[in-house]
Amino acid sequence: MEKHELVIVGGSAGGIQAAICAQKHHGLKDILVIRMEEKVLVPCGIPYIFGTLGAVSKNIIPDKILGEAGLKIGEVVAIDRNNKTVKLKSGEQIGYNKLVLATGSSPLQPPIPGIDKENVWFAWKNTDYLERLAEVINGTGDIVVIGGGFIGLEFADECRKRGHKVTVVELLEYCLQLVCNTELCIRAEEALRSNSIEIITGDAVKSIDGTGRAESVTLQSGKQIKCDLVVVGIGVRPNVQLAENAGLEIGVTGGIKVDEFQRTNDSSIFAVGDCAEKYSFFNGAPTPLRLASIATREGKIAAANLFQPQWRNVGTIGVFSTVLGNTAIAVAGLTEAKACEMGYDIIVGEAEAASKHPGTMPEAHPMRVRLAFCRRSGKIVGGCACCTHTVGEVANIIAAAIVNGMTMEQIAMFPMGTHPWLTASPLAYQITDAASNALHKAKNIASVS
Amino acid sequence: MEKHELVIVGGSAGGIQAAICAQKHHGLKDILVIRMEEKVLVPCGIPYIFGTLGAVSKNIIPDKILGEAGLKIGEVVAIDRNNKTVKLKSGEQIGYNKLVLATGSSPLQPPIPGIDKENVWFAWKNTDYLERLAEVINGTGDIVVIGGGFIGLEFADECRKRGHKVTVVELLEYCLQLVCNTELCIRAEEALRSNSIEIITGDAVKSIDGTGRAESVTLQSGKQIKCDLVVVGIGVRPNVQLAENAGLEIGVTGGIKVDEFQRTNDSSIFAVGDCAEKYSFFNGAPTPLRLASIATREGKIAAANLFQPQWRNVGTIGVFSTVLGNTAIAVAGLTEAKACEMGYDIIVGEAEAASKHPGTMPEAHPMRVRLAFCRRSGKIVGGCACCTHTVGEVANIIAAAIVNGMTMEQIAMFPMGTHPWLTASPLAYQITDAASNALHKAKNIASVS
Repeated sequence: MEKHELVIVGGSAGGIQAAICAQKHHGLKDILVIRMEEKVLVPCGIPYIFGTLGAVSKNIIPDKILGEAGLKIGEVVAIDRNNKTVKLKSGEQIGYNKLVLATGSSPLQPPIPGIDKENVWFAWKNTDYLERLAEVINGTGDIVVIGGGFIGLEFADECRKRGHKVTVVELLEYCLQLVCNTELCIRAEEALRSNSIEIITGDAVKSIDGTGRAESVTLQSGKQIKCDLVVVGIGVRPNVQLAENAGLEIGVTGGIKVDEFQRTNDSSIFAVGDCAEKYSFFNGAPTPLRLASIATREGKIAAANLFQPQWRNVGTIGVFSTVLGNTAIAVAGLTEAKACEMGYDIIVGEAEAASKHPGTMPEAHPMRVRLAFCRRSGKIVGGCACCTHTVGEVANIIAAAIVNGMTMEQIAMFPMGTHPWLTASPLAYQITDAASNALHKAKNIASVS
Repeated sequence: MEKHELVIVGGSAGGIQAAICAQKHHGLKDILVIRMEEKVLVPCGIPYIFGTLGAVSKNIIPDKILGEAGLKIGEVVAIDRNNKTVKLKSGEQIGYNKLVLATGSSPLQPPIPGIDKENVWFAWKNTDYLERLAEVINGTGDIVVIGGGFIGLEFADECRKRGHKVTVVELLEYCLQLVCNTELCIRAEEALRSNSIEIITGDAVKSIDGTGRAESVTLQSGKQIKCDLVVVGIGVRPNVQLAENAGLEIGVTGGIKVDEFQRTNDSSIFAVGDCAEKYSFFNGAPTPLRLASIATREGKIAAANLFQPQWRNVGTIGVFSTVLGNTAIAVAGLTEAKACEMGYDIIVGEAEAASKHPGTMPEAHPMRVRLAFCRRSGKIVGGCACCTHTVGEVANIIAAAIVNGMTMEQIAMFPMGTHPWLTASPLAYQITDAASNALHKAKNIASVS
């Protein structure tokens, strides 16, 4: 029987990163990655297949990234923990010393009447499926996107670029509400609406109607939207059947339970990425965040801990960004609503300035930062930035501040660098100024109470 | 006699920021800023006057930034510390309770024969002077720039954009050598050379020749360069005469000596910005870095400490960035040469990946990061990034890592966010991957020794 020092089940972000880091950290050569897909998609690139990139083939992670790890295409259907083997659908058995589960997630399929119609599509991470969707979309007309999260909005924006009339339906009051402060939600919606995308919020889909094919979508409000195609992007559920069948514990958000070293309740088995339970950096509680950037981090951590616990996963912060129309938005850490819900007494500081300096530099645009701090400790708990294309890295500065527990004083004094072409002025650098603004408010509150 | 709670001498970055923060932090209304200039230039914007911006008037900091602080145009010629007054050239005396000196710096004028010719210019922060230079440059031909530091190179690049033939002469082996790793120096030089700027390094200017006007520059090597105008940008000296005359102590790099709260040896007098001595974040030793971003930080710190020590200046890291041609470069912390000189045993990690992901996204370009770590502590001591326009903020992420003493393990596990339009792939994010690369090297060294 074939046997490997390390077997990784799943070949997307988390699995790949585990394979890379196991080679780097342990010099492990005897690694086998088993995955179902012939080719692996760049997960965050999926919406761009339908607009900017124009083809599935432009959104593939090349297998050479796996280095010297072996690769087998197949479906693992069972884990025998006693004999430390996995069984493939083909019947083949493969032994492991250490096993990393990176089985990912699948699109949620809400129980809406008509959801099974042939022209209702999901963001399956499968090249064949998405190639068919790309083909179908090319010849189609109006599109309804169910779900105003990142995937839904990016998908809507890309289809709009190809000339489709697009309507987004979101259950909550705002799109992106679970991950962004209201201000950013509004900016995101405005960016899309200004490009003629219709956005309906605070309304649910009651049914997808039509004879055979979906021809319209009916909302709870009674509103009907005609369409030629429906795309559903309301979230994912972790793929944990394999783990569950093997007796591995499952967490409250539905992921495989892991400790701070990414170990499951079987010390030879690790879980990373969308299939693994996440825990909040802030209070250690389970949190439903699922992102490729989180998956790769967990892959690294698991690889470092294979033979002895070395790296502790201090928890998930949640760092997101996107570009809708020409509006970039980014967030790191807790939204203000979430922070309040968790019991924080927060103080919010904000600052806006031209993205270049002086503001007369070409293509200088307003750039805003909002930071939320715990009033008692002074520590940053979250922040967001918009609307220029540096905000992805600005969110990473905020993430660095969060992970290091920086206070409003420390951030106000942060020794940032600035340059006319690349940043705001040193007199108006948004991150430090937002911290100063929070300090100022904290002082005023303190002097009143 | 007029008297103010706070008098600030100098109205550029450091003075302005002190005025703003004294209002914010102490609710101080009784502030007077005394400066020599009618209008204040954006210091880092000066080179752009001569190309991108096209006019001095587009590079002015509006006085409204001073808020409720008073403003007086005049030259302070003496400080009477016993009576706590400053004396203006006009003879007027003004009393202070607290005094902030933000007198800035002046261009160094090397003792080169011919340096005093009328068409030899310097980067004086003076609107009239620069307006005259802008006028003269418009009608001129070939330009020699003496000094291959940031100001010199940016000036050269801007003049090139206006169609001038430009030659840069740098004494050291590479341009930017004192602040950048060799790799970045080479990229900067390549960016300029590819735009037909001639760069001569490792050669000094022996004389500036011509009858009356500068007509050519003769180098130590014997080489002669014909020119119609010379610009000198070899650095600055702090303006400390006023402080020195008042008996304030001067540091070894020529700045006004300050403690960690920006106080001079007179506890009523603070110094900030280019006129103040800087101390290294790494070992507390005096360091000759002078930047507007450092000045504004010191302005904030001084303002917070006016009435009692509150904020400690933990020292200067040094965060720089620029764009030459279309090549952006950025650095934070120690160069590798400087770190070695200071006694660090360093390990360098590097990583390169497309700036967007997948690499098939429009306008994805290679982006590189190099990070240097202290081998013993594992802590980051410096880093640099090139060549895309997000590197200014990437250097600030590196600065955040430095100021928080992050180790290679912590940076390798850093919970960055990624997005196709805004950053590298989560599988190839340069900062985390450079840290992983350093870890890998550290491990190999450890296993050998």
